[in-house]
Amino acid sequence: VTQAQPNAHPPTDVPAYSLPHRNARVLLMRRPVGIPQPADFAIAEADLPEPAPGQLVIRNIYLSVDPEQRGWALAEPNYSEPVALGSPMRALAVGVVIKSRAAAFAEGEFVYGWFDWQDYAAVDPAKVLMRARWGLPLADFAGLLGINGLTAYLALTQLGRPNAGDALLVSTAAGAVGSLVGQIGRILGCATLGLTGGDEKAELCLSRFGYNYAFNYKRQNVSEAIADAAPKGLNIFFDNTGGAILDAVLRQMATGGRVVQCGTASVAAWNPPPVGPRNEREVLTRRLVWSGFVIFDHQALFVRAAERLANWAIEGKLVSQSDIAAGMDQAPGAIASPYAGENTGKKLIYVG
Amino acid sequence: VTQAQPNAHPPTDVPAYSLPHRNARVLLMRRPVGIPQPADFAIAEADLPEPAPGQLVIRNIYLSVDPEQRGWALAEPNYSEPVALGSPMRALAVGVVIKSRAAAFAEGEFVYGWFDWQDYAAVDPAKVLMRARWGLPLADFAGLLGINGLTAYLALTQLGRPNAGDALLVSTAAGAVGSLVGQIGRILGCATLGLTGGDEKAELCLSRFGYNYAFNYKRQNVSEAIADAAPKGLNIFFDNTGGAILDAVLRQMATGGRVVQCGTASVAAWNPPPVGPRNEREVLTRRLVWSGFVIFDHQALFVRAAERLANWAIEGKLVSQSDIAAGMDQAPGAIASPYAGENTGKKLIYVG
Repeated sequence: VTQAQPNAHPPTDVPAYSLPHRNARVLLMRRPVGIPQPADFAIAEADLPEPAPGQLVIRNIYLSVDPEQRGWALAEPNYSEPVALGSPMRALAVGVVIKSRAAAFAEGEFVYGWFDWQDYAAVDPAKVLMRARWGLPLADFAGLLGINGLTAYLALTQLGRPNAGDALLVSTAAGAVGSLVGQIGRILGCATLGLTGGDEKAELCLSRFGYNYAFNYKRQNVSEAIADAAPKGLNIFFDNTGGAILDAVLRQMATGGRVVQCGTASVAAWNPPPVGPRNEREVLTRRLVWSGFVIFDHQALFVRAAERLANWAIEGKLVSQSDIAAGMDQAPGAIASPYAGENTGKKLIYVG
Repeated sequence: VTQAQPNAHPPTDVPAYSLPHRNARVLLMRRPVGIPQPADFAIAEADLPEPAPGQLVIRNIYLSVDPEQRGWALAEPNYSEPVALGSPMRALAVGVVIKSRAAAFAEGEFVYGWFDWQDYAAVDPAKVLMRARWGLPLADFAGLLGINGLTAYLALTQLGRPNAGDALLVSTAAGAVGSLVGQIGRILGCATLGLTGGDEKAELCLSRFGYNYAFNYKRQNVSEAIADAAPKGLNIFFDNTGGAILDAVLRQMATGGRVVQCGTASVAAWNPPPVGPRNEREVLTRRLVWSGFVIFDHQALFVRAAERLANWAIEGKLVSQSDIAAGMDQAPGAIASPYAGENTGKKLIYVG
């Protein structure tokens, strides 16, 4: 993101936003035990930030809530450094450039990036992941075209390598990432199977996200359901859960199948690792390719991926769900909600 | 293998062979329990086979002994159909064409392929994997350029994707495949670490196979030894063992590391699968690519791979060890020997 984009299409449907005189921020006050809770955070005001030479100041409009924030709040370095106690919580956000001392960005441009849970952020241009172009509603840039959509698209295409006719199974199939994986898989010609933890979500998979099949693993025998729906085995498993579901599904993979490990949400603690059946023989005899996906490894492909997603969205081929709460005080409790199985869709906090 | 090769270089060092009037064959008489033993087989004579139109008759000179034969002898289809009871044991072999009704093959050509444990084989040309060219000793075509060398080269290059400077760990590092993986890795610029089950084999890794480091897992702490030798983690693990060694090594992989599952020799039985620590979190957080390798998936690349191996061998960059027994009666007991840790090198039976 180093050049001005003269022919950028600004986002449609930008909500009103104010320009408060103080910068309200959600600070991480202590290391969470397990899933972060509201009491781990405090909201405090600071002075308006000023841009250093080469920097931008962003007025955030939508704060993003992501499961990855759980790891960022912990003391152990996970994929990235822990958030320092007393600092604003690390987060993605969508906002508008209100001051620019960087040649590549003009005031009034809408951008998506590492702006944290606060009203204003003074950042280097490297913190901007994307400009909000392509004439879509602003909220989509933190959801459909944000980290969820990018994860769904890049993990599926780069690691899952779908071919037309492949049988694709998605776990947490109605979730913010999974629901997009299913839709993208179908656009690319896969037969799509969704695995969820409830009848309502399974119904949503069929009616809203276009899955060919959907199962409730709490009520159905996963192995039998897969064997019925994909009698030649699964070519791709897009897994957000790990654990016993993964073990069962590995034994339903077709020769040469790809397993995309995008999350391990079903396993509460990894230290020490829980035990399960050994899976190396499945990897060998089925000639699987089992890969781990972390979105920020693929940053070079973000703009190209978002453009493809935007085109599909404009053509009406992709639906996404946003779950938008209003007010910064909604942020601290929001990380826990997907772990409680509460949300269906991308959680955003409107702070305009 | 469909065209005559006018400028083929015949093998050097072809041992004498006779042309007996009867076809001695090693027949599989019963399903082995565990590892095949001599009592599971019988040697019997049959008439000399005649080639049907389009077929060849091969006089076998070296029979190959391969760990895969264990699976072929069992009743359960593994990678391929079980050998029928009362039939010659499925095997690779090197031999000479003594009769040809196939335009692509001339009498007197040396060939490597699916000729089974017998003196003579009447086969379709599709059973020929390679012509024995490139001016190397005939035995090398069943060893260095045969399934072991092809496995080492193709699994390492196709799935391990080595880059110069990568840290490559090989389990069963002094074995018929492992010893070649280490050498090929070194030729391709990797730092090579060998894992073996004995001090003598570890010494052989250093003195003969050119490993930079070699460990005896029975005496050394694998994790500590790896951490000392490869402080930035392992980029490639070429695994022939599975089990507890695999679990330990996965936790020593660098981000983006490749795990090539080529065997699971340390685990005696898979039904039901033994338990071990869950590894999906390692796959995810380390962004591993963990793939299963079965050599016969890669047949289209055999000739090109063998040519590269032959060039290295001619340049003196690759050493291989053959362990050649004489007489067809040596074949039935030979499958068990690598499982007993007895051999270092490729086991062949000379039946000329």
